[in-house]
Amino acid sequence: MSKKNVIVAQSGGPTVAINASLAGVVDATVKNDAYETVYGSIYGILGILEDNLMNLSDQVATNPNFIDTLKISPAMYLGSCRYKLPSYETDANTYSFIFKQFEKYNVGAFFYIGGNDSMDTVLKLSHYGEQIGSDVRIIGIPKTIDNDLCITDHTPGYGSAAKYVASSILEVAHDTFIYSVKSVTIVEIMGRDAGWLTAASALARNDYNSAPHLIYFPEVAFDTEQFIEDVKIQLETRNNVIVAVSEGIRDKEGNYISATTAANDQFGHSQLSGTGKCLEQLVKDSIGVKVRSIELNVLQRCAAHISSLTDINESFSLGSHAVEYALAGKSKCMLTLNRVSEQPYTIEIGTADIDGIANEAKSIPREWINNAGNDITQELYNYMAPLIIGEPTVNYKDGLPVYLPVNHLDQSHMHV
Amino acid sequence: MSKKNVIVAQSGGPTVAINASLAGVVDATVKNDAYETVYGSIYGILGILEDNLMNLSDQVATNPNFIDTLKISPAMYLGSCRYKLPSYETDANTYSFIFKQFEKYNVGAFFYIGGNDSMDTVLKLSHYGEQIGSDVRIIGIPKTIDNDLCITDHTPGYGSAAKYVASSILEVAHDTFIYSVKSVTIVEIMGRDAGWLTAASALARNDYNSAPHLIYFPEVAFDTEQFIEDVKIQLETRNNVIVAVSEGIRDKEGNYISATTAANDQFGHSQLSGTGKCLEQLVKDSIGVKVRSIELNVLQRCAAHISSLTDINESFSLGSHAVEYALAGKSKCMLTLNRVSEQPYTIEIGTADIDGIANEAKSIPREWINNAGNDITQELYNYMAPLIIGEPTVNYKDGLPVYLPVNHLDQSHMHV
Repeated sequence: MSKKNVIVAQSGGPTVAINASLAGVVDATVKNDAYETVYGSIYGILGILEDNLMNLSDQVATNPNFIDTLKISPAMYLGSCRYKLPSYETDANTYSFIFKQFEKYNVGAFFYIGGNDSMDTVLKLSHYGEQIGSDVRIIGIPKTIDNDLCITDHTPGYGSAAKYVASSILEVAHDTFIYSVKSVTIVEIMGRDAGWLTAASALARNDYNSAPHLIYFPEVAFDTEQFIEDVKIQLETRNNVIVAVSEGIRDKEGNYISATTAANDQFGHSQLSGTGKCLEQLVKDSIGVKVRSIELNVLQRCAAHISSLTDINESFSLGSHAVEYALAGKSKCMLTLNRVSEQPYTIEIGTADIDGIANEAKSIPREWINNAGNDITQELYNYMAPLIIGEPTVNYKDGLPVYLPVNHLDQSHMHV
Repeated sequence: MSKKNVIVAQSGGPTVAINASLAGVVDATVKNDAYETVYGSIYGILGILEDNLMNLSDQVATNPNFIDTLKISPAMYLGSCRYKLPSYETDANTYSFIFKQFEKYNVGAFFYIGGNDSMDTVLKLSHYGEQIGSDVRIIGIPKTIDNDLCITDHTPGYGSAAKYVASSILEVAHDTFIYSVKSVTIVEIMGRDAGWLTAASALARNDYNSAPHLIYFPEVAFDTEQFIEDVKIQLETRNNVIVAVSEGIRDKEGNYISATTAANDQFGHSQLSGTGKCLEQLVKDSIGVKVRSIELNVLQRCAAHISSLTDINESFSLGSHAVEYALAGKSKCMLTLNRVSEQPYTIEIGTADIDGIANEAKSIPREWINNAGNDITQELYNYMAPLIIGEPTVNYKDGLPVYLPVNHLDQSHMHV
């Protein structure tokens, strides 16, 4: 009986660590003799639907630095998609086609690296596979900078994004503290529904820096009057106040501040006004102090040159464990990071049944946010702190970080 | 006769390299036996006016890592100011007070590290000093991320900001290229009057990345219709178009695009709309493709963890040369970087009379921008490329870069 092959794909929004998981899958497959070839599906599950695969084993064979460079390259080497599988009831053909592709490529295991939507794909394919008695292992490998996946202690990609946020806040603090005039600086951080990444701003605090001085989360209803009060109190004791705010803060009726305040304050097109801009205008109108807002934007999910070694190593390890689990017969599951010890920080990798993971988001527990709703507690600090430790080696050429390119459709199209 | 002391101060907007020049001044003074003590003036020239100085020689004596850590710390260790000296005619007292302070502290040389406004201070103090027959050496050390100072080949701080801009564009390209759907990404870069930093986005191009695909400068009148055409043409041949744009682009009447387009397109408060946001809206309205704008904001001038070693070393060297020049009797001048060879890139440090430097800005020569006004020429590329080379060693503790704090007024206030 000939050896089986594996297919791996990446989906959803980019992180700095999602290629490390891909590198882990490729490395383990190549090193482990049980599988023949590892194929990459271009643009997520779409690559299978459109018969657009690339041979990743070949890349390892021809480029001795492939694994190491892939490990620290940002975004998705294989490209991504935002495609959600139709339900089986409305479109059975898509499912039968995917499993025919698995047959055509003699696939033993399919690994999908992604966030909530990708785990939904893993769930649906797993159910269909069970139903038709397929022996293809379907395994999800988590990633998201938002850290909002259930069951796993944290998500790959979060630690690196957290490190970027914390370092940026520290550098913005340096930039802000140089003037003796009073100022307020508002830093808008990603996370529409969960404040984990915004909370990471607190990791910027060190023996000389107490910024951010205020932090606002989607988990706590935002009160604009209380916010102005909070800022005024901070301005009594310091010249330069730094505020970290989640893009997803909402008022007690559940309306996003970015939209409601924009409308009330005649910002014009409400979709143009980010949350940070709204708070900037609030401070300008109510306090009249020098104020600036900064949106960290996509760099918090793609600035691979300052990623967390802890994050990169865990993500890589998840990839290689996925291959081991598949060989051991595991399927219909997502891999998880389980924190088995706090001091020293120790992680074990496990699996969880895919039912009950997909489509459910994890918020910050309310008790990990202070009573006033404008800062984190020590427990949350302790939870986050180990995740940003360590710096991977990034090589530079001509002054730029050396990464592997995103593998474009036009370059990578192949029919194996 | 007792040895004289020196005072050094920093002024204007932050750069990643301005502390390297400070480190150079301090290091050279401490190592050179000719001067006694180096004092730092807190918040620029204001520290002299408010008698707020700190003893920097003491810092070297008590902290063995002081010079090395200072060299790679962002923003101003001594704090900054935006204070412009009144003219001698309207306020002679300020001048006489400053020179009385020089006497009180037995000052042999005053070094002012800063941009255009700071060179104005050097100019005014130099003239006053000449007039009263003072022998205090007054020397300006340039810095600005904008690279818009005359006479010097380039300005300290520019190379590091350029490296940040280029690396960020490359990482944004990775982030953008993952999807097969058409998109336009607009990156707004600092530089109100000169496009040097925006031009540095072109350094992101490598063997797999051709972004940015379009670049717009303050030096060329911006035509919104031509811009839409340019973007449409790019979208014909690629999925993901990346546009680099200076915050300071203006139409042919000289109106900033950020203001005019905002008003025309009912953005609401025009001061809320950055240039990137305006172009985003233009693309949305005219092409209807997926579009995002990113403002690099202050991180381009404070992200010291990815500074250019070439820039840091040159800035340090300018600081130490300033001390040597002062000892050699030089005054009433600004230090300059002179490019004496292109291959290999070689710099010599010189001086230029302060007259004719202050208050004059240097733009990109029109012939270094292509005819269409939407990209750079190879000559400009060659000019910029060596400036971003090399990476200084940045240490990390608990996952964060280790910097020296900005020396706050409350911590540093002293009367020597």
